[in-house]
Amino acid sequence: MNIAVDAMGGDYAPEMVVQGAVEAASGFGIDITLVGDENRLRGLIDKDQAQGRIFFRHCEHVVEMDESPLKALRKKKDASIGVAFDLVKHGLADAVISAGNSGATLAAAVLTLGRLEGVERPGIATILPTERGCVVLIDVGANVDCRPGQLFQFGVMAQAFACSFLGIKDPRIGLLNIGEEKTKGNEQVRSAYGLFQRSDINFVGNVEGRDIPMGTVDIVVCDGFVGNVVLKTIEGNVESMVKLIENELMRSSSGRTALELLRRPIDRFRRRLDYEEYGGAPLLGVKGVGVICHGESSAKAIRNAINTAAQYVTTRVLEKMSLQLKKSGAG
Amino acid sequence: MNIAVDAMGGDYAPEMVVQGAVEAASGFGIDITLVGDENRLRGLIDKDQAQGRIFFRHCEHVVEMDESPLKALRKKKDASIGVAFDLVKHGLADAVISAGNSGATLAAAVLTLGRLEGVERPGIATILPTERGCVVLIDVGANVDCRPGQLFQFGVMAQAFACSFLGIKDPRIGLLNIGEEKTKGNEQVRSAYGLFQRSDINFVGNVEGRDIPMGTVDIVVCDGFVGNVVLKTIEGNVESMVKLIENELMRSSSGRTALELLRRPIDRFRRRLDYEEYGGAPLLGVKGVGVICHGESSAKAIRNAINTAAQYVTTRVLEKMSLQLKKSGAG
Repeated sequence: MNIAVDAMGGDYAPEMVVQGAVEAASGFGIDITLVGDENRLRGLIDKDQAQGRIFFRHCEHVVEMDESPLKALRKKKDASIGVAFDLVKHGLADAVISAGNSGATLAAAVLTLGRLEGVERPGIATILPTERGCVVLIDVGANVDCRPGQLFQFGVMAQAFACSFLGIKDPRIGLLNIGEEKTKGNEQVRSAYGLFQRSDINFVGNVEGRDIPMGTVDIVVCDGFVGNVVLKTIEGNVESMVKLIENELMRSSSGRTALELLRRPIDRFRRRLDYEEYGGAPLLGVKGVGVICHGESSAKAIRNAINTAAQYVTTRVLEKMSLQLKKSGAG
Repeated sequence: MNIAVDAMGGDYAPEMVVQGAVEAASGFGIDITLVGDENRLRGLIDKDQAQGRIFFRHCEHVVEMDESPLKALRKKKDASIGVAFDLVKHGLADAVISAGNSGATLAAAVLTLGRLEGVERPGIATILPTERGCVVLIDVGANVDCRPGQLFQFGVMAQAFACSFLGIKDPRIGLLNIGEEKTKGNEQVRSAYGLFQRSDINFVGNVEGRDIPMGTVDIVVCDGFVGNVVLKTIEGNVESMVKLIENELMRSSSGRTALELLRRPIDRFRRRLDYEEYGGAPLLGVKGVGVICHGESSAKAIRNAINTAAQYVTTRVLEKMSLQLKKSGAG
């Protein structure tokens, strides 16, 4: 197993990215190829730390966060994210992770590896903690507008992902809408409802926003605009609530006493709702494995994303996904 | 001040609705006209409670939750929600509140009172608690698809609402998108961005999901599909988090001790994040005042919505809104 890491992508790159990669190499025993400015990257690593698991692939350029993905990839032929996917294409790595420009990661994956047979547009999935466990939300930002067939494909791909990667048998799929009735919502979701209903996958119907944190279903399908807004709303809400609780407790002496008693439960609680624990958002629909990390990823987030990418490979999600796409007629 | 209450609308109508109305009448000194099955409604009220503030307007029908709003209103000429808005039209009430079919409330408002000059489509606004205070989110369900001009109008109307109703001077308006850059998002929000930018209102640019709970701006504008999903996601997330915290605490004896100490802060915290405290979602863009309540509204939610409706009237939001619409060129 060798994971290509876009060492130059992300708000805290390359330092945090390299630290996370080193942690993954030593913690999970995964080989890593750091893609980027080799001299700079080597300077960030103790030889002892590397333990023979860290490799380098030098390149000069990086796609910046504010660049147009396609233009940047055309102009910078050896941008780190493109080179990373090239390693996968040539069998030199099994997967890519990047905390860089997510549009560029998606574009480089499609341009270099291509799409799975029949897939119109790949989607970005994310795993969110819920009251009961976790839920796969797809798409969280790859496609701001989606045709009904694309929403259906997201569901089929996420089904394979949830089965193989999360080990959920016959995952329940919900379509995100503004009401449960099938007449609700816009044209796009009403048509997608019909496609899901006519298929043989475990479609439970429309779900609403509250079903995501409650964990009513295993998979929630929506377009990338809605999904991205929902994901960031939940992240912000969790952060705000933890702050509000702490402020509320600091207002009274019994609260402050409670806060002392609470350190460990609060930490457990935070960890449970911390998206960094879930290690990045896998790309579904490309012929290979790519995992997108938050731009602000810490070393821990990078480490966990590398682990996610490795599991994505070992659980053979891609094979299952191709099969499902064919079977469902979506592919 | 007399508020017409659709006594037959809502999952717990008429009992909870009547109880909330009685509480509002005695607690806030607001006159109430209960619209619905008079005999049944009278049976729910002690004469002592009414204190001369509760009036009745009998009607036979109600628009059920699962009915198509326009069809139902055409068929049931004396449905409670239509009759309630009729009272406003004829000067017999100052505003309407309803926990019934929200599409029917919107439709009855538009059919009976009409739209403010220049308004293409009214929107439903909601006030959400944030880290720093509160934020107005518009639209939360009236329009599943919006043209850019409609999004702009929502911003202008919400500006007047935030000024008059919430007393915020020069409220900051953000457009909900999947990134801050103005090139982000779909065609609809990119065009709306231009309209906001060229206007003289206090537009701070695109905001992301996390800005809603963080309270980065005073007003967040989006289409009704996205807004409805966001609203319900936040509601569900708050509920789930309170449950998770309590479960976490119950796992250890120090946690259980803390939970005892915490009862009051947790109650304060719950109250702070409880949408029922904010009393319903005002309709913006009709020639009159209507407030939409959650179908599952408790008596408290109804009471607070009646108070919201009364404040909406006394703070002269409508005048300010008409003025703003003209001034901004949106009307």
